[in-house]
Amino acid sequence: MSKTDLQQLLLDKIETGLKEIDLPVQPKTLYEPYRYALSAGGKRIRPMLTLLACGLCEGNPEDALPAALAVEILHNFTLVHDDIMDSADTRRGEPSVFKKWSENIAILSGDVMFADAYKKLSYYGHSDEYSKHEFAAMHDVFVKAIITVCEGQALDMEFVERLNVSHEEYIQMIAGKTAALLSGALEMGAISAHSTNQKRKELAELGYEMGIAFQIQDDLLDATADPEKFGKRPGGDIFEGKKTYLTILALERANSAQATLIEETLDQEKPNDEQVDQVLSIMKELNVLSDVADEVEQHYQKAFQLLNKFRTSDYQQELEKLLIFLQNRDH
Amino acid sequence: MSKTDLQQLLLDKIETGLKEIDLPVQPKTLYEPYRYALSAGGKRIRPMLTLLACGLCEGNPEDALPAALAVEILHNFTLVHDDIMDSADTRRGEPSVFKKWSENIAILSGDVMFADAYKKLSYYGHSDEYSKHEFAAMHDVFVKAIITVCEGQALDMEFVERLNVSHEEYIQMIAGKTAALLSGALEMGAISAHSTNQKRKELAELGYEMGIAFQIQDDLLDATADPEKFGKRPGGDIFEGKKTYLTILALERANSAQATLIEETLDQEKPNDEQVDQVLSIMKELNVLSDVADEVEQHYQKAFQLLNKFRTSDYQQELEKLLIFLQNRDH
Repeated sequence: MSKTDLQQLLLDKIETGLKEIDLPVQPKTLYEPYRYALSAGGKRIRPMLTLLACGLCEGNPEDALPAALAVEILHNFTLVHDDIMDSADTRRGEPSVFKKWSENIAILSGDVMFADAYKKLSYYGHSDEYSKHEFAAMHDVFVKAIITVCEGQALDMEFVERLNVSHEEYIQMIAGKTAALLSGALEMGAISAHSTNQKRKELAELGYEMGIAFQIQDDLLDATADPEKFGKRPGGDIFEGKKTYLTILALERANSAQATLIEETLDQEKPNDEQVDQVLSIMKELNVLSDVADEVEQHYQKAFQLLNKFRTSDYQQELEKLLIFLQNRDH
Repeated sequence: MSKTDLQQLLLDKIETGLKEIDLPVQPKTLYEPYRYALSAGGKRIRPMLTLLACGLCEGNPEDALPAALAVEILHNFTLVHDDIMDSADTRRGEPSVFKKWSENIAILSGDVMFADAYKKLSYYGHSDEYSKHEFAAMHDVFVKAIITVCEGQALDMEFVERLNVSHEEYIQMIAGKTAALLSGALEMGAISAHSTNQKRKELAELGYEMGIAFQIQDDLLDATADPEKFGKRPGGDIFEGKKTYLTILALERANSAQATLIEETLDQEKPNDEQVDQVLSIMKELNVLSDVADEVEQHYQKAFQLLNKFRTSDYQQELEKLLIFLQNRDH
C-alpha cells in the first residue's frame, strides 16, 4: 500500500513519539531490550488506529499520541512475552528479545514495558483538557484490552493441548489475541477526542470486527496461497499441525472417515504433500473455504458500515483505505 | 508478634478483599495460578501499610482497600515472575507457580495479575470522593513503584554476573527490589485519605527507610545467626556465594590478602566451615558487622522520626509496633 500524505504524517508522529520516549540508560539489561523491541519496527497499525479514531471523532490526533504510544508499547510487550511462550527465535527478521538476551531478561524487560505503557496514560490524568471521567475511561479501556489479550493467549496455549476446540471457542481466542487491542486502540482514540459514548462503542466494535476478519482471513490465506505468486504452497498450517479456524470447522463438519484423515495428517510430524492436499480438498468439499471467505467478508462489511456512521473526513477515508487494503490482501 | 485487635481487623479486611476479587473461571490456565498465588498467604505487610497509612492520615481505612489490594496483587505478580527468574521451586513452603504449572503459564498469569492490580485502581477513578488529581497521583505512584521494582530486579540479576559491585549500587538495588513498593504502599494509603503532599512525601520516605533497614538487616542476620536458637549456622549467604551488603563492604575495605580469601570462598562451589568462619572474622575485623548494625539502626531511627510527625492514634501505634518488631527480630 503506497502511503498517503496523511498516513505518512501520522506515522512520523508515532515514530518520533516512540524515539522520544525518555528511558534511563541503566539498568542496561532492562532498557536495552526495551529500546530494541520498540525500534524493531512493524506496521504500527495499532497506534495509527488510535490517531485515526481521534481524527474521525473530530479531535486533534496530537492529543491521541500518548494513548497511541501506550498501545504500541503494550503491543510490543505482548510480543516480547509471546515470543518466549512460543519459543519464537525471530521477530520481524531479527532475533527475538529472549533469543538475543535471555528468557529472564525478556520476562523482566517485558514487565517494565507494560508498566511504562501505563505511564503514558498519566498524560490524561494531568492535562486540563481531560475530565476525570475521561481519564478513568482511558484507564478502564486499556486495562480491559490487556486482560482480554492475556485471556486470548491463555486460550491459544490451552487449545494446543486440547483435542476438541469448537469454532466458537476459536473466535473467542482470536477476539482476545487480536481484536481486543485493535478495539481498545480505536476506543482510546475516541476518548482522546472527547467523543460521545455512542461513538466510542461504535469504534470499539469496528476494531473488533476488523480484528476477527483479519485473523480468520490469515487462516484462509494460508490455505489458498498461490504458489506461483508467493513461492510457498497452500496449507502451511496443515503441515505444521496447527489448529486453525479452517481445520476446526472442517472437523465439525466431517464424517468419520474425513475426520480421521484430517486428524492423522495434523498429528503427523511431517505429513506429505498428498496428505495435505487431501485435507485441503476435504475443506473444499465441506464448503469450509467458501464459508470462511463469506464470513471474512461479513466482518469487513460490518466494519465498513460502522465506519460509514462517521462524518466524511480525511481520517475516515484513511481508515476506509486501510480496511480495503486488508480486505484485498492476498498474503 | 501477637496480633492486636486493630491489626486483626485490618488483616481480615485484606483477606476478605482478596477472596472477593471476582475472577472469571476461564481460561483456567490463567486464573487458577492467579488464585493460587494470592491464596498462598504471606504476611500481607504491604496492604497493611496502605491501610495503616490511610488511618494515620485520618482517613477511613476502608477507602484504602482497593489500593491495598492493588499493592498486594502487584507484589504477588512480582513473586510469580521472580520465581521463574530465580529458578525458585518453592514459595512459602508450596510449589511456586512456574513449578506447579509451567514457565509459560507463570509468565502469562503474572501478566494478568499485573493488569488486574491496575484495574483495582479504577475505583479511585469512579468514586466521587476522589478528585482527578488524586486519581492521577494514585496512578503515578503505582507506576513509579513497579518500574523501580523492575529496575531493582534487573540490577540484582546484573550483579550476579559482575565482579565489582559498590555498596552504593547495592543500596540502589534493594531500594528498588524492596523499598520502592513499601514506599508506594504507604503513599497510596495517604492519597486514599486525601492527605497533603507533605504527609504523602513523609510516608513515602518512611517506607523507603523501612525497606532499606529491613533488607540490610536480612544480610546482617544471616551472618550473625545463633545456631543454638535457629538450628542453622551463621554465614549461609557466604556458603551460597551470594553478594550481600556485608561481602561488598568487606571487599571494599579488605587488603589484598583478605580480598583474595573472601573472593576464593565466594567463588567456590562448596566452601568448608573453616573458610566461611575466616570470611566472617575478616568482616568482624574490618568492622563490617558493627557498622552495618549501626546503619540498620539509623534507618529505623529515621523511620521512627518520620512516624512521630503524625498525630498519635491507634494507627500510629500500630505502625510503631510493626517497626519495633522488625527492628528487634533476630531471624
